[in-house]
Amino acid sequence: MAANPLHVIMNPSSIAVVGASNNFSKMGTLQLLNIIYSGFPGEIFPVHPTEKEIFGLKSYACVADLPYPPALALLVVPTRLVPELLEDFGKLETRYAIIVSAGFKETGSAGIDLEQEIVSIAKSYGIRFVGPNCMGIVNTQHPLNISVLPVKMPEGVLSIASQSGTYITQTMPYLHRQGIAVSKAISVGNEANIDIVDCLEYLGEDDETNAICLYIEGIRRADRFLEVARRISKTKPIVAQYVGGTKSGARSGASHTGSLSGPDYVYDGLFAQAGVIRVNTIEEVYKIGWTLATQPHLNGSRIGVITHSGGPGTAIVDICDRFGMDIPELSGRIQETIRDMVPGHAAVKNPVDLTFMVDLKPLVDDIPRIIFASDEIDGVIIHGIMDTEFMGFMHPVISQISELEKEAFAKGFEVDLNVLTQLPSKYNKPIVVSSFVTHQDHSTQVLQQHRIPQFDMPEKAARAMAALYQHHLIRKRKEPQAVELMEIPEQAEKIMENLTNISVDEFTAKAILKTYSIPVTNEDIVQTLEQAMAVADKIGYPVALKGCSPVIQHKTEQGMVFLDINDSDDLSQAFEKIRSKDSGIPLLVSQMLKGEREFMTGISSFPGFPPCVLFGLGGIYTEALHDIAIRLAPLGRDDAEEMILSLSSSKLIGPYRGMPPVDMEALSSILMNLSQLAIHFPRIKEIDLNPIIVVNGKPKVADALFIMS
Amino acid sequence: MAANPLHVIMNPSSIAVVGASNNFSKMGTLQLLNIIYSGFPGEIFPVHPTEKEIFGLKSYACVADLPYPPALALLVVPTRLVPELLEDFGKLETRYAIIVSAGFKETGSAGIDLEQEIVSIAKSYGIRFVGPNCMGIVNTQHPLNISVLPVKMPEGVLSIASQSGTYITQTMPYLHRQGIAVSKAISVGNEANIDIVDCLEYLGEDDETNAICLYIEGIRRADRFLEVARRISKTKPIVAQYVGGTKSGARSGASHTGSLSGPDYVYDGLFAQAGVIRVNTIEEVYKIGWTLATQPHLNGSRIGVITHSGGPGTAIVDICDRFGMDIPELSGRIQETIRDMVPGHAAVKNPVDLTFMVDLKPLVDDIPRIIFASDEIDGVIIHGIMDTEFMGFMHPVISQISELEKEAFAKGFEVDLNVLTQLPSKYNKPIVVSSFVTHQDHSTQVLQQHRIPQFDMPEKAARAMAALYQHHLIRKRKEPQAVELMEIPEQAEKIMENLTNISVDEFTAKAILKTYSIPVTNEDIVQTLEQAMAVADKIGYPVALKGCSPVIQHKTEQGMVFLDINDSDDLSQAFEKIRSKDSGIPLLVSQMLKGEREFMTGISSFPGFPPCVLFGLGGIYTEALHDIAIRLAPLGRDDAEEMILSLSSSKLIGPYRGMPPVDMEALSSILMNLSQLAIHFPRIKEIDLNPIIVVNGKPKVADALFIMS
Repeated sequence: MAANPLHVIMNPSSIAVVGASNNFSKMGTLQLLNIIYSGFPGEIFPVHPTEKEIFGLKSYACVADLPYPPALALLVVPTRLVPELLEDFGKLETRYAIIVSAGFKETGSAGIDLEQEIVSIAKSYGIRFVGPNCMGIVNTQHPLNISVLPVKMPEGVLSIASQSGTYITQTMPYLHRQGIAVSKAISVGNEANIDIVDCLEYLGEDDETNAICLYIEGIRRADRFLEVARRISKTKPIVAQYVGGTKSGARSGASHTGSLSGPDYVYDGLFAQAGVIRVNTIEEVYKIGWTLATQPHLNGSRIGVITHSGGPGTAIVDICDRFGMDIPELSGRIQETIRDMVPGHAAVKNPVDLTFMVDLKPLVDDIPRIIFASDEIDGVIIHGIMDTEFMGFMHPVISQISELEKEAFAKGFEVDLNVLTQLPSKYNKPIVVSSFVTHQDHSTQVLQQHRIPQFDMPEKAARAMAALYQHHLIRKRKEPQAVELMEIPEQAEKIMENLTNISVDEFTAKAILKTYSIPVTNEDIVQTLEQAMAVADKIGYPVALKGCSPVIQHKTEQGMVFLDINDSDDLSQAFEKIRSKDSGIPLLVSQMLKGEREFMTGISSFPGFPPCVLFGLGGIYTEALHDIAIRLAPLGRDDAEEMILSLSSSKLIGPYRGMPPVDMEALSSILMNLSQLAIHFPRIKEIDLNPIIVVNGKPKVADALFIMS
Repeated sequence: MAANPLHVIMNPSSIAVVGASNNFSKMGTLQLLNIIYSGFPGEIFPVHPTEKEIFGLKSYACVADLPYPPALALLVVPTRLVPELLEDFGKLETRYAIIVSAGFKETGSAGIDLEQEIVSIAKSYGIRFVGPNCMGIVNTQHPLNISVLPVKMPEGVLSIASQSGTYITQTMPYLHRQGIAVSKAISVGNEANIDIVDCLEYLGEDDETNAICLYIEGIRRADRFLEVARRISKTKPIVAQYVGGTKSGARSGASHTGSLSGPDYVYDGLFAQAGVIRVNTIEEVYKIGWTLATQPHLNGSRIGVITHSGGPGTAIVDICDRFGMDIPELSGRIQETIRDMVPGHAAVKNPVDLTFMVDLKPLVDDIPRIIFASDEIDGVIIHGIMDTEFMGFMHPVISQISELEKEAFAKGFEVDLNVLTQLPSKYNKPIVVSSFVTHQDHSTQVLQQHRIPQFDMPEKAARAMAALYQHHLIRKRKEPQAVELMEIPEQAEKIMENLTNISVDEFTAKAILKTYSIPVTNEDIVQTLEQAMAVADKIGYPVALKGCSPVIQHKTEQGMVFLDINDSDDLSQAFEKIRSKDSGIPLLVSQMLKGEREFMTGISSFPGFPPCVLFGLGGIYTEALHDIAIRLAPLGRDDAEEMILSLSSSKLIGPYRGMPPVDMEALSSILMNLSQLAIHFPRIKEIDLNPIIVVNGKPKVADALFIMS
């Protein structure tokens, strides 16, 4: 496997910049400024047709004039110039580029052609590039900042790859205020050559990246994403926001970076399978990412909450509970110790609520010492650490009666956080903090220096702790095993060869399923009433009688399905009714399964994805409830079991209301074998096995439909 | 009805403060400071055993010494002193109080007794009070700030009542930074006398309150809350956070203010019925409240989105879509006009994405003019307005090549917002804005001056627009009608009189239901096989046979239920099986309903709530999916219909997969009549009608269980 091209792109020894000038309002100029003043240690070559010197650097009139091939070419030029310039760099033997210029795939058909052109040029010269239509990259460790926002950034431990350039530029002042320090940031743009999966892979290998953030509008190589993310997430947390799942989101993403999006639940499935923590806002991307990048692992579900205000405490534990964490009542011994440190009416069970206190020492020192040291708690949330900014807010009133200047007055309330900031590493337990103050508060500054994440709302702190808990569960998952593809069953291949229609009739579909050891109803195909009677007698009543043809998809709505046929009289009536609608259609006589629980499974296809396996409630509930899980084929047994148990209605799987549990091995085998079938025959675009009826715990497919491409 | 006591408490002409001294670290002192320096125009009387003068005010040794009865007494004293002091004020004929002191109901049994004592004292003197265990109140219009945080606050238009004192104190600096100006704020504490429902009612009447925020850990008078909120929310938006719905949240709330909480879905039901917009964080409480308080109504679902960055645009439309709003593609005419104002590769369909631009005039001026003026859009979201703070962030790099000082440099980028800030009122359409800058940015300051809500994340701006849309839908609801209670059916009363067991057998339960015109299966009770056969013949096969006794609740699990009995042989077998388990139990022979769709309805009881009606999926799905809606009895027809259609699986109600629609009038009548039954007989604590089977669109109750107190 070739080395990841991002190793060079993120750490080039020299850079050529085409599109910078001495005009400040140009993107290229801002980017050149950034490269120079962010401290890039290599050589920089501006290329400009007329400028002789740009910010003290010698400028070259054309690419061919460069003294040697720069390691990286940065193109920030009008769209039409990109192909030629890329060609020039190709000839010079530069093998890596970042193309900032926009106006390609995202603009429609002419742009698509132009993008194809630069892809071809790159291919012919072996050039790997980021973009086009991107905002550049940042590597605070090189250091190198090619982004359009000229700022010096501190070295950090959180990295991001983003399908929006804004999230590595406009957000930087926000990150600065929040004390979040980035290691690497990559704006991937249209992903014509290097895509977000390459970035993920690179960041997974990067020792200076403790956690990875992704902003996603659509993934083009979902199979590879799954493989890479599943491996990385076992040790390094991955947080992702996906916004292409709605109709409007998909349209917006397409005109933004020409992205291919898919329904929301497909990405839910991909992320679940890959061990990626899904979040809902860019704030969560960064702040939860920062928490995961800076805090020790959470090794259990028991959270201790310390506050001096009941509301935030209640809000915090409410969120913790929703995410499956526990807020255990502290032991009597600990409660007694804390009781001595707080006012009489304080609550000490957990959450510990000191109630109103001017002195914050119990909140940030005495009580955290006890809680961290105890073996009753795995992680700690504190609300209400604040000092100078908060107290300064009162100064206009205080100044009415006090001579003290604002700064001096506020300084008198500075909190000593020397103990608290050492506790997480001392006890190897994570902490998150919330408070209504900002980075202008002394206490916040100290927390930021020690990389303790502080949130502006209690609920957000709790959500971040929940992410640590999610990663705890991901780390506990079994090592992912590569799923081995089985041989294609000979019989299945033979049947498939003869199929020419766009859909496959139920009988044939079930015949194929049988070759994959998927249990189906006992049944046979007939043409005459006599044959039907004979089959029904053999199977035993009650039976079902259905019209069976590849051209009729909605059999029920067409009056071609008769269920619960109890005797030969009813059979003959049903037979006549179907015959009256269609004189030649073959008929299927099937065993009538009796079971209260009905599920469904199937295959769906989405652009950029391998075949996906669906599992959900069956019968009339499939569409009405959309309680459906999805995973990418092929499925391992763990995938199948996790998927089954991820349904909201997974209670139905266990022993339930007097019914035996569903045979998990049999059910997961159906999903696994179906996933192999889908991989074997890419012609099959859609499979719908609905219902799967559970009889005495055993699942059996009662109806089947295949749609071919 | 007596006038709301809060009219005086929020606007007193004079105040006595007991518990203030010249010691700064005491809450009472901070509160007195606040009263004085927030500009309270009335007389203030400190009461203190030893101080002669406090901050220049004459101090009184005891309550009896006061020159006249103050309109309001503020008690910030040790818990044990509260009863005596309240008594003193009662004798003096002061009729209103705020009790800040804690240590009552929230601390357990001794505290409960003490709280009962002050309730009695208050009652005997006709005193109405806020608290105990509260943080005070704020009225910026009086002005009066009794809260523990001594700050001067500007007059505003948003009011809050909170079961956490923190949310009217610690949050104030946050609100200041956000440009949110409060009208009234009330910390309700333990609600021993005045509760959050009184506050809601008061704020509903208050002309200076445009929108109401509530922080709730539990409501004690849900019926009155519903009545009041439903009326207010038709014109004035109400936003609420509820955090008592989880096990941990409930425990924390109890030790915070001794609150009575209920399950989450019960509050979902209450809020839906009352037209209250539920939010999930205190940030949403305030920022969404502020949006609702300041913006013109949103009168449709069509949102225009303008950005200069694709990611935020996509994130915004994704949220809009989730909340049911539309992002319509702009007409060709408008697209062409905008096309001329932006770079060639910009997106102009909606969202309008200018892509990277240094000049923000198109974003804040040219394009908003067009979008606001068009009749294609009902509300506008803009991402990316920012100037001085953002540009200043680049100054360290820029200073390498420019002589300009930071302020001068940043000032050069100041955006002219004169047009934008006038558009919402000119066209009577709401706007919300997002940007990654803070109140230190010039553009943010201008937006705040004009009360245009700015959010720090695009997703939050979209969520706020969604709240405007939610209120649009609430305003469109029919005027709430008082539900008239019907006469108790004579026959029902007679049956109920004879019931003594804790549960009621199925036959009797259905007999009661019939008196409320609730359709039930055709059936009769029998003792012998002969009788059973006769009933079955009369009803017609198939039938069901069940043991029928008030002492057996889980009939199925006990092997006492036989369904789908097709003939007399099967009936006799089933009869023998039940008899072999119980030789004397009466037996119920019921019509066997055949229908694919099964629902359930029922009654549940929760502390502080009137009987609540449940409606959800029936049969094995009720518990497995918990797709259940709840409303407070009695139900009007609108309530019932809204409730039915609020299920996730409401598709099952309409015509569905060849089945006719469920008869909505019949189904809602069942819920309405059941709600009357529950009101008539408070002895019945729980009713479970499950399943209700739909046959040819007609719902019929197939099983029934009543549990009595």
